[in-house]
Amino acid sequence: MSASRYTYLGPEGTFTEAALRTLPEAATRELVPKVSVPAALDAVRGGEAAAALVPIENSVEGGVTATLDELATGTPLMIYREVLLRIAFALLVRPGTKLGDIKTVTGHPVAQPQVRKWLAAHLPDARWESAASNADGARLVREGRYDAAFAGEFAAATYGLEPLVTDIHDARNAETRFVLAGRPARPAARTGADRTSMVVWLRDDHPGALMELLQEFSARGVNLTWIESRPTGEGMGRYCFSIDCEGHITDRRVAETLMGLKRICPNVRFLGSYPRASADGEPPTAGAAPRPGTSDADFVAAAEWLARCQDGRA
Amino acid sequence: MSASRYTYLGPEGTFTEAALRTLPEAATRELVPKVSVPAALDAVRGGEAAAALVPIENSVEGGVTATLDELATGTPLMIYREVLLRIAFALLVRPGTKLGDIKTVTGHPVAQPQVRKWLAAHLPDARWESAASNADGARLVREGRYDAAFAGEFAAATYGLEPLVTDIHDARNAETRFVLAGRPARPAARTGADRTSMVVWLRDDHPGALMELLQEFSARGVNLTWIESRPTGEGMGRYCFSIDCEGHITDRRVAETLMGLKRICPNVRFLGSYPRASADGEPPTAGAAPRPGTSDADFVAAAEWLARCQDGRA
Amino acid sequence: MSASRYTYLGPEGTFTEAALRTLPEAATRELVPKVSVPAALDAVRGGEAAAALVPIENSVEGGVTATLDELATGTPLMIYREVLLRIAFALLVRPGTKLGDIKTVTGHPVAQPQVRKWLAAHLPDARWESAASNADGARLVREGRYDAAFAGEFAAATYGLEPLVTDIHDARNAETRFVLAGRPARPAARTGADRTSMVVWLRDDHPGALMELLQEFSARGVNLTWIESRPTGEGMGRYCFSIDCEGHITDRRVAETLMGLKRICPNVRFLGSYPRASADGEPPTAGAAPRPGTSDADFVAAAEWLARCQDGRA
Amino acid sequence: MSASRYTYLGPEGTFTEAALRTLPEAATRELVPKVSVPAALDAVRGGEAAAALVPIENSVEGGVTATLDELATGTPLMIYREVLLRIAFALLVRPGTKLGDIKTVTGHPVAQPQVRKWLAAHLPDARWESAASNADGARLVREGRYDAAFAGEFAAATYGLEPLVTDIHDARNAETRFVLAGRPARPAARTGADRTSMVVWLRDDHPGALMELLQEFSARGVNLTWIESRPTGEGMGRYCFSIDCEGHITDRRVAETLMGLKRICPNVRFLGSYPRASADGEPPTAGAAPRPGTSDADFVAAAEWLARCQDGRA
Repeated sequence: MSASRYTYLGPEGTFTEAALRTLPEAATRELVPKVSVPAALDAVRGGEAAAALVPIENSVEGGVTATLDELATGTPLMIYREVLLRIAFALLVRPGTKLGDIKTVTGHPVAQPQVRKWLAAHLPDARWESAASNADGARLVREGRYDAAFAGEFAAATYGLEPLVTDIHDARNAETRFVLAGRPARPAARTGADRTSMVVWLRDDHPGALMELLQEFSARGVNLTWIESRPTGEGMGRYCFSIDCEGHITDRRVAETLMGLKRICPNVRFLGSYPRASADGEPPTAGAAPRPGTSDADFVAAAEWLARCQDGRA
Repeated sequence: MSASRYTYLGPEGTFTEAALRTLPEAATRELVPKVSVPAALDAVRGGEAAAALVPIENSVEGGVTATLDELATGTPLMIYREVLLRIAFALLVRPGTKLGDIKTVTGHPVAQPQVRKWLAAHLPDARWESAASNADGARLVREGRYDAAFAGEFAAATYGLEPLVTDIHDARNAETRFVLAGRPARPAARTGADRTSMVVWLRDDHPGALMELLQEFSARGVNLTWIESRPTGEGMGRYCFSIDCEGHITDRRVAETLMGLKRICPNVRFLGSYPRASADGEPPTAGAAPRPGTSDADFVAAAEWLARCQDGRA
Repeated sequence: MSASRYTYLGPEGTFTEAALRTLPEAATRELVPKVSVPAALDAVRGGEAAAALVPIENSVEGGVTATLDELATGTPLMIYREVLLRIAFALLVRPGTKLGDIKTVTGHPVAQPQVRKWLAAHLPDARWESAASNADGARLVREGRYDAAFAGEFAAATYGLEPLVTDIHDARNAETRFVLAGRPARPAARTGADRTSMVVWLRDDHPGALMELLQEFSARGVNLTWIESRPTGEGMGRYCFSIDCEGHITDRRVAETLMGLKRICPNVRFLGSYPRASADGEPPTAGAAPRPGTSDADFVAAAEWLARCQDGRA
Repeated sequence: MSASRYTYLGPEGTFTEAALRTLPEAATRELVPKVSVPAALDAVRGGEAAAALVPIENSVEGGVTATLDELATGTPLMIYREVLLRIAFALLVRPGTKLGDIKTVTGHPVAQPQVRKWLAAHLPDARWESAASNADGARLVREGRYDAAFAGEFAAATYGLEPLVTDIHDARNAETRFVLAGRPARPAARTGADRTSMVVWLRDDHPGALMELLQEFSARGVNLTWIESRPTGEGMGRYCFSIDCEGHITDRRVAETLMGLKRICPNVRFLGSYPRASADGEPPTAGAAPRPGTSDADFVAAAEWLARCQDGRA
């Protein structure tokens, strides 16, 4: 039964699985790894699963384009949760392997820049070869194809390996943000520390079109947290924009902004409003304080004043 | 009975009276001249009259500050109509006076710049002295105090004078805009070629505050037609802003703009939405075409889309 | 010899004369009253005088349109100084007149709103009639035409009158700002607390044109202190803009703003940069602190960086 | 000798090599493949090569983050040329292999989304496994590890394979943009159809900071063609912005924009101005016409006018 099934970017032992397991409801769901972000999301689209957890942004590498583009196109999906996971790698080896024995290492291409300095310092002569995923790298080590794999420490048990070194991360504060996407339904409830995601296409490519788009946010005091040009597939230089802002679709300033975008853009895809997450169970950083005059109370007061003006009672 | 009484900036024979008489309902009203704009408006505030016609802008002299300031402060009034009157002066004299006899001329101070060139060309030696109004100048000519007065040709009969020269106006296209102000009630009906007037106070004097105010208009594609810094009376350098824009308070783009102003400004005084007038019975110049995405239909469609997003049906 | 002659808005005994006498150099100049702002300024244009002092703004009445429009058109003039004068009226009477004797009062029309409340409280039955200037009102009292005139206390001696009541002013902080205009030459030296005045015509009347104009200021962190739509004389609804901003033309942020305006507007008339004045000898209120990144040092550093980029040394 | 050596993202047979060979000077250079974008660029930084060609953007996948981030950090490099290459894949096999024989296919992960539909239609049962590069995939086919590889047709000869199917591309107009990066020196000469690239850090994370940044472009009529939030490495939610705009650093509107950014941002890295390329030898699409008032002639005229104002000759 699909309602009890969540897919995720697999295979087993990935950081995505670890992120998924931080969700309380994961304990009561069947967790099904998929070979790719599209496969994980298509399982939701097709009704095979209720939701899919996929990475969307990494504090070192930036946006995960496969996820951004899958959410931007095809059958609509919506984001209901985000999970923030601190990323640290373990160097997984077959039991008994020592550092000096390691001639080849593997891992997901995204892992490489995050362990590059550690490699240069500790295994300067080891040859890196990319694997399809960190977990897949672990499997290839198990099979003897490589001597060591960078992966989450939690993957060691799954693949019968040992963590030789742990907590490896070139960048401090390396984190990955994952989103739980499902079929469109009512957005997650407003918490007061929310994020809203969308994809916006511009009406045309006139100079200043992007400024007009952003003015819809700034005129209502809505803070952008993310913007990225994404290709529309119609050729080089044709973009849509993946945008995140602070606030919830039921916040009036956000609602008015979304309507403003809808009016000036040929296409706006609402991708959900959901609680902003934090890593390690800390409360989410408070967003920027809303600009004066942009609270729901301000909107209500202004609407009441307008009604009085229209009735001649102002 | 006040409902049948309109006041206007008198005395009899002013351009204001002529403007008032262009309104069809003037035929069935008691028209009462007042000595000043404040007096005309206070008669409305006090219930003595239903409405007052006062000049608000002259195409040569600019805004009529007495009117702007009276509407900005005190008991609120609202504008329901505007009248545009082409201004041309007649040189009024006692019967028998010839051009060569004229040593002194009078008229309202506002008339002077509009006849200055004509005076220099035709009566270079005549001495100008200001009168309290053009009509008052005519009265003073009648009484023999001056030889000639500049006033509307229609004032000749009232004061027993003759128009010696007519159609005098230094500036082509000299026009005065008058407004009919009454106590607050429902605004005039939307016509599609409307103007909305307001006075706006800024929250504080931070750099960019004026830009934020104007962004409320530009973000919704609402076209400003008039802006003037007006002193608040709190000292030099402290201003409020007299603003006119195209559109009607029931146009959604205007309504949202007004609410936006109300949210960011400590005080907004709505002065009415009313049909834009034209001189000489011509249809009013069409305003600028609304920016794409700012029609009422666009607003409705965007609101419906938002509702679908909030319901998970987008 | 014109270099030693200053004109001013007369007649003798006006506040303008009082303002002019606050300038140290006035002591060594021949001060010549003129009957109007245009006459005072035309004397400068014609070479008859070196400079003219005229009122430009009143904290109660707003801009002095005659001055704004004279400076906006015709042979260019430039502002080199401003003078701020606290305005309080004296009620001038012929020696021996008592309050109870006063049936008629006069004064400049601009004086009326500033003494209206005082009149209502102390001389409710007196009839007001406007004079061409406050000083002219004093003269008419001297001649017996009126019983009392509102004017500056300093005008009493000139016209052989007595100040019966002094320090009359409905509004607290009533001040008038005067400017000293001369033929174009190098602007006044930068003091760090300067004002720059200009008149700007828009390229066309497209929606947002005013916003584009103001963006030239906001993009460089230049603070507007005054904006007023002024008729261009080409018909109702056609305006140019009288604008003051903080800063001096030699401040780089102001210079770049002026060049930006010049590029997008068909006409910009620079009216001068000059020290901001204060009333009663107090130092001028410091303007808003410049936005970070807009000091001359920031401009110089950015230009040097650009040069390094262009030379491949950044 | 390094001046005669260019590196590129290898191995031999990649699209990058094909793009590099479209440059006339490539014929007289030693072309050295490197295993990664960082390796190719570091060879330039270290003086081993004069320049490196690396992919920066794909019309299907978007920005190449390895390149964006390498250029944003570390020892500065500058872009002198761009090359646009139409991307179509060939299915390379060992001689004699038929479509029905193919059980496993490989290629660079970026190739996968561009051939996914073709695969689903023609080889629905083939298993995909990623290779480190398209060329590396070809090598692995040569070695017998996979049955077929997606790569450029030009790679067939290098690896002793046969193109079984050619011109495979799911997306029409698939193109990749490559940049030739060298050590900082004078920018490429202005051609009139140029692009300028930069990375910009914001002063702080206040709401509207991004708007202020973009206003520097819009206020001077400079058209953005690309913007992407890139992580700064200081933690989730901390971004710099990779930005491309139309125009050349010696275009005055671009120069003033860059200086404006430099003034308000704590860090701006100029990455070069260079001719906009087109695919297949077509002339580059003309950029948007510059906004009126933003040509070099307009800037020069405005500067001359400013000088006249400052000299009192305006």
